[in-house]
Amino acid sequence: MASKRIGPQTVRFNNPPVIIGFGATVGPMEGDGPLGDSFDEVVSDLYAGQDSFEKAERELMKRACHHALAKARIDVKDLNYFLAGDLLNQLITSTFNALPLQTPFMGLYGACSTSMESLSLAAMLCDGEFADKVLIATSSHNATAERQYRYPVEYGSQRRPYAQWTVTGAGAAVVAAGGQGQGPRVTHVTTGKVVDLGITDPFNQGAAMAPAAVDTLMAHFKETGRAPDYYDLIVTGDLAQFGREMAIETAGREGLDLGPRYQDCGVMIFDSERQDVHAGGSGCGCSAAVVFGHLLKQMQQGGSLKRLLAVATGALLSPTSFQQGENIPAIAHAVAIEA
Amino acid sequence: MASKRIGPQTVRFNNPPVIIGFGATVGPMEGDGPLGDSFDEVVSDLYAGQDSFEKAERELMKRACHHALAKARIDVKDLNYFLAGDLLNQLITSTFNALPLQTPFMGLYGACSTSMESLSLAAMLCDGEFADKVLIATSSHNATAERQYRYPVEYGSQRRPYAQWTVTGAGAAVVAAGGQGQGPRVTHVTTGKVVDLGITDPFNQGAAMAPAAVDTLMAHFKETGRAPDYYDLIVTGDLAQFGREMAIETAGREGLDLGPRYQDCGVMIFDSERQDVHAGGSGCGCSAAVVFGHLLKQMQQGGSLKRLLAVATGALLSPTSFQQGENIPAIAHAVAIEA
Repeated sequence: MASKRIGPQTVRFNNPPVIIGFGATVGPMEGDGPLGDSFDEVVSDLYAGQDSFEKAERELMKRACHHALAKARIDVKDLNYFLAGDLLNQLITSTFNALPLQTPFMGLYGACSTSMESLSLAAMLCDGEFADKVLIATSSHNATAERQYRYPVEYGSQRRPYAQWTVTGAGAAVVAAGGQGQGPRVTHVTTGKVVDLGITDPFNQGAAMAPAAVDTLMAHFKETGRAPDYYDLIVTGDLAQFGREMAIETAGREGLDLGPRYQDCGVMIFDSERQDVHAGGSGCGCSAAVVFGHLLKQMQQGGSLKRLLAVATGALLSPTSFQQGENIPAIAHAVAIEA
Repeated sequence: MASKRIGPQTVRFNNPPVIIGFGATVGPMEGDGPLGDSFDEVVSDLYAGQDSFEKAERELMKRACHHALAKARIDVKDLNYFLAGDLLNQLITSTFNALPLQTPFMGLYGACSTSMESLSLAAMLCDGEFADKVLIATSSHNATAERQYRYPVEYGSQRRPYAQWTVTGAGAAVVAAGGQGQGPRVTHVTTGKVVDLGITDPFNQGAAMAPAAVDTLMAHFKETGRAPDYYDLIVTGDLAQFGREMAIETAGREGLDLGPRYQDCGVMIFDSERQDVHAGGSGCGCSAAVVFGHLLKQMQQGGSLKRLLAVATGALLSPTSFQQGENIPAIAHAVAIEA
């Protein structure tokens, strides 16, 4: 029996890996939002000095990695692996960032759950004694994602009130083996299963992802023996306003009270009234920027946030399978991060 | 220092994980090729009884997983993780196969290198004591890949003589922690870096991938202290005829003689003269079907193949970045499998 496994979906680390550096670079709207002052860097327009939106997204991930490495005070050549993923087909943001790093690279795809998929695997590679230092990164860009998944933003297509706004931003972190640095510790990982409750509307991703979030949360609490009030904060990735309400309701029906300390990165990152983002933020960069740009900083500053459960949620939306009449399955991965 | 790491790109397993079950399901052309009798199952047409090519690819992966699980004599509920990837955007083949399995799932993308990316991670999760049993799967389908990356096959577009033929097929394996079953053992993993030698022709993937294969092979031999003749067979993923020649030549210039025991899955899977596949096979399913459908079977039958080095090669080709004038970077991951 695998000694670090404490349940069907959860592993506990013997020597918890440490997040020794983290950072986020975001776009102008995210910089103008409630968490704007937290992020390491805010670019002034969607092009970030590049000549295409795709290259802009690449630049955001590059800068987020730079901030994480600088804060970890390590050099690229100290890295054993680079684990990254993004929303663009063939993971071009991650791949083209891996090229100059010249670090062993593995591409990951879990839609918006990729931030915690990468943190889970990085922690396992460190705790399993395969790596001392792993760089992880995740990104999204409003204009690249919208045109790939729905309509190019230039079309000015009208958005439904329950639609979410894809975050322009990237988050990165350096994960080190336990004892090899200071920082928030990764203590548990609960890996999600694919869930499908029959959602077919590509604008209603919150509804597709909420059941996946609840499924993973139920598994986490059952397998760790913890209750929601163990954590100072539980955040889901990017369910946004309606998805968050749906998660609270769905969890309630399963007998799980998520309590007053439950929040959602898609709700936190924008002021939805003032910024006209409808239900809130979404995208791979949403949970990555909020966790690696804002929450871990709070934890490191020694405030009240000492125990965080981050549950990144991904709607596995494919324009092809959607057009062929299929549902939108979803997945969520949870990581417990403790000061 | 991570104790299982023996070099910048290579880890050695203390208690080598075992491949306790493996299998492949392929399309009609692959069934008609030189390895046709090896595969567990050959479907009679490209639809595999489904109403779309995408669903056909999904069916191939499902059946490959079924063969691997049956040979491992374990039930789905004994699995700790399902690690899978394919060529389709948002990994729909893998995701929709993960749904009925209801096993913790992580999606991987490394183009055609995904077969060995998944085997590498599965072995690390087992050796790191995070898992007892991990199911891995990779697939491709000629008609789904061609229309996504180049032209729909219905267009009948003329193919260049150096073009490769995307394999219709899927390979799967069950990896178990050392001591938990019989089968070929995974002893070393060498993870690739992204390499870009300036190839911009999406039909010339062999040329894009050959330098990545050589880069990873050089690292593997240097870091393990082994020479090519340690292995009974070295196979690259899907360089095909010209890419294979290029790899031999490039390695030679670096002082590495790949020797007479070097072969390529893209060359092996088809009879390129008779089957009109031009340079040979390619696609995620190519190395997966050849390794999990043919080579491991040979190893298990106790013949001369006792030490195999499988180097899956991926051209990280994106229609978007290609149309924006960018090169096609590539990557290769090597796994040493020993009887």
